[in-house]
Amino acid sequence: MVRVSDIGELELLQWLYERLGNQPILQSLNLLTDVGDDAAVIKLSPTISLVVTTDALIEDVHFRCEWASAMDIGWKALAVNVSDLAAMFAEPIGAVVSIALPESTPVTWVQEFYDGILKFASTANIAIVGGDTVRSPRGIAITVTAFGNNPHVIPKRSNAQVGDMIVVTGTLGDSALGLRALSHGQMDALECNALRDVIQRHLQPQPRWREGLVARAMECCKCAIDISDGLVMDLDHIAQMSQVVIELWLDCIPISEAARKVAEQLRCSALETALYGGEDYELLMAIPEACVTHLCDEIHTRCGTQCTIIGRVLEGPAGIYGITPDGKRIRLHGGYEHFKAEPAQSAIPPLTMQ
Amino acid sequence: MVRVSDIGELELLQWLYERLGNQPILQSLNLLTDVGDDAAVIKLSPTISLVVTTDALIEDVHFRCEWASAMDIGWKALAVNVSDLAAMFAEPIGAVVSIALPESTPVTWVQEFYDGILKFASTANIAIVGGDTVRSPRGIAITVTAFGNNPHVIPKRSNAQVGDMIVVTGTLGDSALGLRALSHGQMDALECNALRDVIQRHLQPQPRWREGLVARAMECCKCAIDISDGLVMDLDHIAQMSQVVIELWLDCIPISEAARKVAEQLRCSALETALYGGEDYELLMAIPEACVTHLCDEIHTRCGTQCTIIGRVLEGPAGIYGITPDGKRIRLHGGYEHFKAEPAQSAIPPLTMQ
Repeated sequence: MVRVSDIGELELLQWLYERLGNQPILQSLNLLTDVGDDAAVIKLSPTISLVVTTDALIEDVHFRCEWASAMDIGWKALAVNVSDLAAMFAEPIGAVVSIALPESTPVTWVQEFYDGILKFASTANIAIVGGDTVRSPRGIAITVTAFGNNPHVIPKRSNAQVGDMIVVTGTLGDSALGLRALSHGQMDALECNALRDVIQRHLQPQPRWREGLVARAMECCKCAIDISDGLVMDLDHIAQMSQVVIELWLDCIPISEAARKVAEQLRCSALETALYGGEDYELLMAIPEACVTHLCDEIHTRCGTQCTIIGRVLEGPAGIYGITPDGKRIRLHGGYEHFKAEPAQSAIPPLTMQ
Repeated sequence: MVRVSDIGELELLQWLYERLGNQPILQSLNLLTDVGDDAAVIKLSPTISLVVTTDALIEDVHFRCEWASAMDIGWKALAVNVSDLAAMFAEPIGAVVSIALPESTPVTWVQEFYDGILKFASTANIAIVGGDTVRSPRGIAITVTAFGNNPHVIPKRSNAQVGDMIVVTGTLGDSALGLRALSHGQMDALECNALRDVIQRHLQPQPRWREGLVARAMECCKCAIDISDGLVMDLDHIAQMSQVVIELWLDCIPISEAARKVAEQLRCSALETALYGGEDYELLMAIPEACVTHLCDEIHTRCGTQCTIIGRVLEGPAGIYGITPDGKRIRLHGGYEHFKAEPAQSAIPPLTMQ
């Protein structure tokens, strides 16, 4: 008997997308995205294109109660969904929260979990409008479904054009380093501000929905994604869907001072973590060269968020290449499959020379 | 330390509803329902009032893989959500499916699960537009979020009026008897058609969304709910929210021939199971007397579904009373709390004389 661990997530999803893509009802539904995108967009009326996304967080797979407070877990459960809305340039509207709890869960844990949800909700202007609370015989399981609206152009992974510049918000690798620090259990080192910063980035990510709305208003970016699987993996999604080459300028990857310090402490490469770490929840966009500076400036002016041009889109068979400071061209691979391995954060693949 | 098992679901939900009701953002959101209703309704435009509902199904709490096929579980995971849409008289639009799977799950199980989802989806005219597939270290956890539209009057639990008649679609108790049969493990008795019927009602419920749309078109029913917790429990939700007495005519409760036969085989009361069993996913409505016959006729004509008048709404302190064939008045209690006990199906409370 073939088990899901034998075939991995991608093969399973491939089968699923094909099945879902064949639903006759899709003919009559005004679905603006492809099945398999991070969020679905359904045009309901001229002013409403409903953006829907859902993410499950499972105890000991996506979070550990030893590492994260109930408040952190609540925050992140909603934040990762709003990050998917951000990738669709949607304004957040509402969310529903489903949680399965062991009977032994302390009531205060549940209350702090919802406090975390509501704390993030108020920063993101999103309302919690319902949910389901059920008993779990084994471990905590959380599913949040968030929805928003983007009646304008929907950015798609398949829309990257040759000549576009690749832009990313904020800095990369912090979250993965925070996770690495947590899993190393170096609690005494927590006095260090840098460590606290990267752990905070892991526990309470700040998705870029405001930046998405600025980009939407400028009407020049047609391709975006949020970085959840890791920069290279998410760029590869764009490269594959758009059938383009993406060239990444490795000395331009934005890495925070905190990430550099922590990487040094943990004796790992800040750059490799930025490339493969995942869970950054930054916005990654392919933007025509003519408007890239203006768009970056607008995002900085309106949201105070630094944008960095980290590469460009070229013609050729889909793939990601890194350009080193001394001009070498490196083929970049990487990824994370839910069923085949532990999260990529703990199994960062090495750079391979082409 | 107080655990969720100490306080039970209702106390936890009470705290949660208060917290959710206090979200400042609700002031600016056009929310047409109260936090705590089975589905949320948000008016997005004159033609779109988005109805959103979510339900979690946890292995060994809501289903058992020994009793239900993957196809059944998929069917039911979506059907229970569409039943919530039905209770809001919404036409189904789409749904997202989140599933957490142990690595050891057979691939064929996952495929049959989605086949069940899609089989039901095609009967209910609803599209599966996305989801999330993740690894679970322990047991299967499913969450479906469904959404629909009802730009007309939204039926609410708090809208029952003195003088309204209580109407239910279909028959009651079949599903709970099906579950009871499954848990008794009398597989040899499965040759009996009646047993097969009630088990089918449990495994593949048929929510009444079409009937809800007929009721909506008639514009006279302002109070509806779907029966998930059990007739008395769900009527009590209406009684409490509307602050009315509901009188139930016990000899009018619709019980199928199959349910009678199986109840006899299992030596339990078909009536008590119909009152308290739960998971019927029939539509329960309070309808002004002037239009009740016409509405029942319309539903029968258009959907082929029998409606039965089973009681009426009276003035007085909120509560449910049963009237026996010989005219006795019985106070009815009952319910199911997720954290305090096993499902009510296996712990049907006795009728108590007032």
